[in-house]
Amino acid sequence: MDILSRLANITPHILTGDDALPYGRDWVGKYETTPLAVVRPGSTKEVSEILALCHETGTPVVPMGGNTGLTGATAAEGMLVLSLDRMQNIREIRPDARLAVVEAGVILQNLHDATAEHGLSYPMSFGAKGSARIGGTLATNAGGSNVLRYGNTRDLCLGIEVVLADGRVLDLMSELHKDNSGYDLRDLMIGSEGTLGVITAAVLKLVPKPLAYATAMVTVPTLSAALRLLNALQTRTGGMVEAFEYMPRDYMENLERHRPDLTPPLGYDQDHTIFLEIASTVPRDCTPDEDGQLPLAAQLEETLGEMFEEGLVLDAALAQSESQRTLMWTIREVAAEISVAVKPVVINDLCLPVDQVETFLNRADAKLRAMDPGFGTCVVSHLGDGNVHYTVFPSTEALIDPLMEAVEDIVKDMRGSFSAEHGIGLGKLPSMRRRKDPVALEMMRAIKTVFDPKGILNPGKTLP
Amino acid sequence: MDILSRLANITPHILTGDDALPYGRDWVGKYETTPLAVVRPGSTKEVSEILALCHETGTPVVPMGGNTGLTGATAAEGMLVLSLDRMQNIREIRPDARLAVVEAGVILQNLHDATAEHGLSYPMSFGAKGSARIGGTLATNAGGSNVLRYGNTRDLCLGIEVVLADGRVLDLMSELHKDNSGYDLRDLMIGSEGTLGVITAAVLKLVPKPLAYATAMVTVPTLSAALRLLNALQTRTGGMVEAFEYMPRDYMENLERHRPDLTPPLGYDQDHTIFLEIASTVPRDCTPDEDGQLPLAAQLEETLGEMFEEGLVLDAALAQSESQRTLMWTIREVAAEISVAVKPVVINDLCLPVDQVETFLNRADAKLRAMDPGFGTCVVSHLGDGNVHYTVFPSTEALIDPLMEAVEDIVKDMRGSFSAEHGIGLGKLPSMRRRKDPVALEMMRAIKTVFDPKGILNPGKTLP
Repeated sequence: MDILSRLANITPHILTGDDALPYGRDWVGKYETTPLAVVRPGSTKEVSEILALCHETGTPVVPMGGNTGLTGATAAEGMLVLSLDRMQNIREIRPDARLAVVEAGVILQNLHDATAEHGLSYPMSFGAKGSARIGGTLATNAGGSNVLRYGNTRDLCLGIEVVLADGRVLDLMSELHKDNSGYDLRDLMIGSEGTLGVITAAVLKLVPKPLAYATAMVTVPTLSAALRLLNALQTRTGGMVEAFEYMPRDYMENLERHRPDLTPPLGYDQDHTIFLEIASTVPRDCTPDEDGQLPLAAQLEETLGEMFEEGLVLDAALAQSESQRTLMWTIREVAAEISVAVKPVVINDLCLPVDQVETFLNRADAKLRAMDPGFGTCVVSHLGDGNVHYTVFPSTEALIDPLMEAVEDIVKDMRGSFSAEHGIGLGKLPSMRRRKDPVALEMMRAIKTVFDPKGILNPGKTLP
Repeated sequence: MDILSRLANITPHILTGDDALPYGRDWVGKYETTPLAVVRPGSTKEVSEILALCHETGTPVVPMGGNTGLTGATAAEGMLVLSLDRMQNIREIRPDARLAVVEAGVILQNLHDATAEHGLSYPMSFGAKGSARIGGTLATNAGGSNVLRYGNTRDLCLGIEVVLADGRVLDLMSELHKDNSGYDLRDLMIGSEGTLGVITAAVLKLVPKPLAYATAMVTVPTLSAALRLLNALQTRTGGMVEAFEYMPRDYMENLERHRPDLTPPLGYDQDHTIFLEIASTVPRDCTPDEDGQLPLAAQLEETLGEMFEEGLVLDAALAQSESQRTLMWTIREVAAEISVAVKPVVINDLCLPVDQVETFLNRADAKLRAMDPGFGTCVVSHLGDGNVHYTVFPSTEALIDPLMEAVEDIVKDMRGSFSAEHGIGLGKLPSMRRRKDPVALEMMRAIKTVFDPKGILNPGKTLP
């Protein structure tokens, strides 16, 4: 009996031929593969039976959530896709314990909607939240726009359920905030891109949903001034900064060229623009005074005024309405659009120590200018956590690899990372091979062998 | 050439005979062992050479920090103790990046003192902070009294340097807040109690040091009311709650019996007493008004008043002076002293889901009462993270094991943990054998074999 017939004994939800093709393509259109088939289990038990069968038969299997990744981690040429998209149950929301118990196929936006009914939030958010599924966010340790305040996926997860390569279930569904009983298998599974096991369910932390926001665009004389502004805001708000985004001059130039409809409040002609937002759950911060102003906004204005006196801030514009706030967010969020508007392009998702971003940008600029005087860039950074989306436009196709390697050389020299939040998948395998500590790589390969001795789980991904 | 002579070629800092004995004893006096010798390297290079030698010769080696653990994780009968106590260098404090780079032998209190000079804090604190060393806190994923706000050691660490069993150095000294380049080896090492490698240095996160505190003792009608009070405080302060400690009636009875000099502000005769503290870095919260009151304290008083109206709070006493605050802290911190004042005793460091603590206490009380009508307890809980220090006084020695197993049965049934923050070491090996998911145990053993194929690192600890 062939593998498809045996799979059909486990679940009727199997797609083949043209029906399977959408699962073989990533949404950026970079990876186009033809899966053997797609199997869509409805329970952990079925996932377990499917993996036991794949293990027995040596069938390569690619676990898949919302398929919104950027690195080709779900490319599945000739392989079986194991889609979690039918496991969409939010099993529990416990407001007093501030946790949610969900299946891996729950769409992020659906969890946002469900928690909002309780005045709570699962504070993981990024552009693809309407399609991305919880299992995928866990498999990639997703980042997004709230990491500065709430951490990445690993920080937001209490427990997971994992089906191992041979079909056994590893039960780490803890609801606990403290558990020192042995090695940390949970964090090993999170971020392993489906190469060590298939996450089928999770216990996630919830936080109070903010009642109000104060949002601003600010110009600063230097990046070190920006960092001091961030630290001052964190101290004075007790850690309420949710976004602190850096847009250098080249970003504003790309913005003006490609989206002249979006006029930044402080103009395009700025060396260092910061977009920032603070958010509060404190009722007294969020109740408008007789002039209709929020105490939260007044506090931000006061702090920015003091920073102006100290020379750390050059100019500032506070959003006075929801539409002004939306404009500011849009100016930041069109980054993906304007970064790929020019070809050839080299996309880098880098991380540096937060106090080293300015040095990195200066070094990279000097080095690339020497190699390719006609190069361009479009840089935007989650400055609060050192993550730099460093997009380079080489003069010619031939310079793509040399410029990427040059950037990575500097990153490595400065002890940064070539993959901050997107992961490895297929796209960053060459960087992983060239840049990762060889001892770490050897230990990772040995761990892979422990969990997946036959190498059936997402073969060819993550580890070179 | 014997092992000691070869060690002497690496470093002259070797202790033998009586000089080695203090390293063989734990401070609670439960484990008394005679080490082969103690070697005290001064650098990562020396640690590497020592482990290479131990690996070659099959010599069991016990890594040791401040030796303040509670589980016998550094017991070293006939083994070589590798003490990090000479590696005390604080290499860097970078205030703008809010990080510190330290060697493993740095004493926790020394790091507190050094960061305070910058208005910053490394917010890991517990009773033994004057002796405990950073390497030990990492090896055990230490918890302590600030976990509610700042997380455990794992949450406070950006990077580590580890020497592997064969002497190779695994360089994970990241200063990064985002790094998705492969499996999470850092969190695997943290909490592994020296059985997977020897941590020699670390990059740690710093936070702003609070400017002021507001502290109170409160009585509540039920534990679910306490949890709602905690959540309300978290929301209204934007997450500034640093301590939220539960003392039930039996705790107050033990307090009255053993420390009648400490009079609790709301009296001994209370079913549910909560000790809580909030801390702020916000200048406007921390500047006294014309009456000398802190806005922070006024805010706490107002919230407690509203909770009183709702019936969630029965009575409250705010600390009006530093000496009143000290008294409240002392009433909580004498727990260790009054918990061991009666023998026989069973000490349990449990964790439950935060909304299940009340159910657990009721179930445990009923079950133990049925088994041993004359039993006593002394219970105190970090309620905010579900950690219950559940001390039982059986009527007879013979009941120690049955009562411990009975408690663990309930904990397991409620998906709690038998080790919240103390770890496993030797003391919790029987619980690990009986209670841990067998699939998880098998994976942990396989990981141990990957990192320490000859089994020389802290043999006989952590894994049964």
